[in-house]
Amino acid sequence: MASIGGSTAVLNTAHALGLVDSPAPGKPLTIKPASGKQKKIVILGGGIAGLCTAYELERVGYDCTILEASHRIGGRNLTLRHGDFIDELGRPNYCNFDEDPNLYFNTGPARIPGHHRRLLGYCKTLGVPLHVRANESRLAYCHDTNAFGGKPIRIGQVISDTRGFLSELVQKGVKADAFDQELSKDDQERLMAFSKFFGDLKDNGVYEGTTRAGSKTERMLDHSTPTDTLNFKEMLKSNTWWSAVFASEHYDWAAPVMEPIGGMDRIVAGFARNIKSPIYLQSQVQSIEVLDDGVTVTYLNKGKIKTIKSDYCFNNIPAYFMSGIENNLSKPYTDALASMERGHLFKVAFQMKKRFWEEEGIYGGISYTNQNISQLWYPSHDIHTEKGIMLGAYGWDTDRALPLEAMELDERLKYAASQGDKIHKNYSSYIEAGASVMWARMNHMMGCSAGLPEGREDEVLSRLYKPEGRHFMIGDQVSRHSGWQEAALASAHNAMNQFSHMVTEKNA
Amino acid sequence: MASIGGSTAVLNTAHALGLVDSPAPGKPLTIKPASGKQKKIVILGGGIAGLCTAYELERVGYDCTILEASHRIGGRNLTLRHGDFIDELGRPNYCNFDEDPNLYFNTGPARIPGHHRRLLGYCKTLGVPLHVRANESRLAYCHDTNAFGGKPIRIGQVISDTRGFLSELVQKGVKADAFDQELSKDDQERLMAFSKFFGDLKDNGVYEGTTRAGSKTERMLDHSTPTDTLNFKEMLKSNTWWSAVFASEHYDWAAPVMEPIGGMDRIVAGFARNIKSPIYLQSQVQSIEVLDDGVTVTYLNKGKIKTIKSDYCFNNIPAYFMSGIENNLSKPYTDALASMERGHLFKVAFQMKKRFWEEEGIYGGISYTNQNISQLWYPSHDIHTEKGIMLGAYGWDTDRALPLEAMELDERLKYAASQGDKIHKNYSSYIEAGASVMWARMNHMMGCSAGLPEGREDEVLSRLYKPEGRHFMIGDQVSRHSGWQEAALASAHNAMNQFSHMVTEKNA
Repeated sequence: MASIGGSTAVLNTAHALGLVDSPAPGKPLTIKPASGKQKKIVILGGGIAGLCTAYELERVGYDCTILEASHRIGGRNLTLRHGDFIDELGRPNYCNFDEDPNLYFNTGPARIPGHHRRLLGYCKTLGVPLHVRANESRLAYCHDTNAFGGKPIRIGQVISDTRGFLSELVQKGVKADAFDQELSKDDQERLMAFSKFFGDLKDNGVYEGTTRAGSKTERMLDHSTPTDTLNFKEMLKSNTWWSAVFASEHYDWAAPVMEPIGGMDRIVAGFARNIKSPIYLQSQVQSIEVLDDGVTVTYLNKGKIKTIKSDYCFNNIPAYFMSGIENNLSKPYTDALASMERGHLFKVAFQMKKRFWEEEGIYGGISYTNQNISQLWYPSHDIHTEKGIMLGAYGWDTDRALPLEAMELDERLKYAASQGDKIHKNYSSYIEAGASVMWARMNHMMGCSAGLPEGREDEVLSRLYKPEGRHFMIGDQVSRHSGWQEAALASAHNAMNQFSHMVTEKNA
Repeated sequence: MASIGGSTAVLNTAHALGLVDSPAPGKPLTIKPASGKQKKIVILGGGIAGLCTAYELERVGYDCTILEASHRIGGRNLTLRHGDFIDELGRPNYCNFDEDPNLYFNTGPARIPGHHRRLLGYCKTLGVPLHVRANESRLAYCHDTNAFGGKPIRIGQVISDTRGFLSELVQKGVKADAFDQELSKDDQERLMAFSKFFGDLKDNGVYEGTTRAGSKTERMLDHSTPTDTLNFKEMLKSNTWWSAVFASEHYDWAAPVMEPIGGMDRIVAGFARNIKSPIYLQSQVQSIEVLDDGVTVTYLNKGKIKTIKSDYCFNNIPAYFMSGIENNLSKPYTDALASMERGHLFKVAFQMKKRFWEEEGIYGGISYTNQNISQLWYPSHDIHTEKGIMLGAYGWDTDRALPLEAMELDERLKYAASQGDKIHKNYSSYIEAGASVMWARMNHMMGCSAGLPEGREDEVLSRLYKPEGRHFMIGDQVSRHSGWQEAALASAHNAMNQFSHMVTEKNA
């Protein structure tokens, strides 16, 4: 790398290119058509941000090339089906689901809320049909090995009881004159009526259960009878119940969420269909040299080092890999990249020979548990067909991930299965096949949902939101919302806005 | 009707048939195969209960005939598409939607929760594919002409703020020692932590808004900033906000709900495909004579009175029509039938030339308003296609229905459109076509979601849950949950259980 110039030169160039008034992050994408001779773009990494960049820059006249280290594009937008290669370090394996297009497992992103406008816009433009995914089922379970004797409780019961008990407390507060200072008598009267309605309280302000959570008697022909209430004090002791009460309140998880029909990777396929740029797979970047007049990248392909010279570079490589890739980027910039933490998000999925959950009234949604598997997801597509792929574990806490990461594949599946048995009777007996993706062990990825260093978020992002010379960092990692495709797109759009501003200034 | 026997004879027969130990309502369906010669069944009315009865009795060897007064089967399971006849009394009209299978309007039932096991069972058995319908959208609106200056508010804001404000009150109650008597210090500490989490409160226990309701800043790249909170006191003044906070708590409306792909009438088609029994359309029943050894029914078909003799009769005719049909049923029984009230449920739907709601982030769900139209429903199927059918009004209060029932068709659509304009800017400008169904004015129906007479529910139902002689009353009307297909099926199953018990006793 003796030929690589110093970082000072690069920074001087950046200033010369007029980045002082560069567009603020988050602005709508506006790229001017390519003009002049500097049209060659190299994109490192074929994840969602890289694909989006190629798609957009192609359209305005740039010549793009994508280098992708792995055997496939899409990054963490990975949907597994029959026979797919699972590139876990040290434990490469193949997905053993039946050969059936409906039997798939979204190992990375799995839901799209209505306010992710960039992603939804691409789904529309690229012709990726969507349907609603039931992210919440009130008939799914909340389970804690340490509460209620380990008995799974329907989420509808947890939510209804929480509302009931809190409303009862509000009514007691009013009666104890606890709110006299801020609420007039009229307000208090309305509050009494509202809280009664909110919690389905008796006339005396007491919560005695609600038919909102179901009925102990056959409610079509007989009088409805509220199901038994939980012990609120016991409920307060376990955070697992809290999850169930919160899950649908998260802005990104709130109803409705969508998913592409047939698997999340239909988005990757949509980009691929609409991109003409060459994509070189199994091309692992070895060095990045940012020069005043271009960017030189070397990469390893089938045992040979190759070189590509371009005018600009968009870099979608996981930031924590950058310390292993020779480059001439400035120390502050490479420090920012190195500061990013790998996430340990993991998922396990099982092919179930029977959609037993539907017989329990569950059509999608999530069950929550305090066990390491954390969540069970039920598919809400292809209802009433014979088989289905269930998510048998989904967590992101490092503490929960590490034991699973250390396990051999079979052991991992057995472990997840045995925890599932605590929630559904005979759960294990329905399992026909299983697959696991521990993102921190996946080759060319080694992480998911990158973390910003605590206390340094602003500093790191303000540096990475801007290019260094002709080098632009992209991906959900360069955002405040990692782990979401929308963030990957926001990052790519921001980089392209910076780029467009840079080349416009330069040509002006 | 001089030949019709007295009601006393009928009742004596009923007792002779051993109905004393008849099965309790709500038991699983168990019908013994037909034996002996008495195999002829007449079913009056081809609604869901009638179709289910024909389907089940056929399978165990009975010869069924369905008489249906209207030009179609399905009853209130009516899905309108291009060119369909809308048989409103005095205002017959045709649906003017484009000719497109995705442009349909479920005028009656429109959602199936996971615990409606009978209906879901039939969907599975009959091969009716389902998908999830987004019944809730946190991005849809709550609107009240008298609150917040008539500005529509996102439902997510209403829900998040309600949780925040109630949690804040709970914390104040704890601080004011309002709950000391029932909660230990430990409990109170946990309650403080839980309510902070439930409402997303600040450390000091104050609610200052939450990013659960969204962000004022671009949240992918910038810091999230909570949206402005509503004024809780103003919110308490309007019941419309209450609806938004409650809607997803109703056991039948809670997430997820399903709908048949292509329209609710795919269930009717599923039954029709699987029924061999003859169905006579435009056959309006004129008289029912229940005899010791059979039932004689006369009906009007193409201007001629025809007679059908059967061994047993299952009657799916709206109960309030029975006073206009000659019969020899007992006075207590006909009194029970006459006591049922017609419901005034109504819906209006518009074909929109553009799915403008998707551009507002709304993918399904419901907006609520205090105006007569009450609700706007957004389709969650065929996302991102060009056009869509939106529900432009959906109410069941008689007070809200009557003004709309009185209107001419065009006036009704204009009225609904102008109220929609209060919720969505330029709403009217997207309307290409419209259809309305006021069930209380629909020929052969004249109502929807029958009401039981207040205070007499038990008496009326206990009478109608049992046959009178060889006559069985069926339909959602004979249930505690009218307006739902599941109730129609529960009623039919109950009648068939009574029937099976009767004929078994008789043959024993």
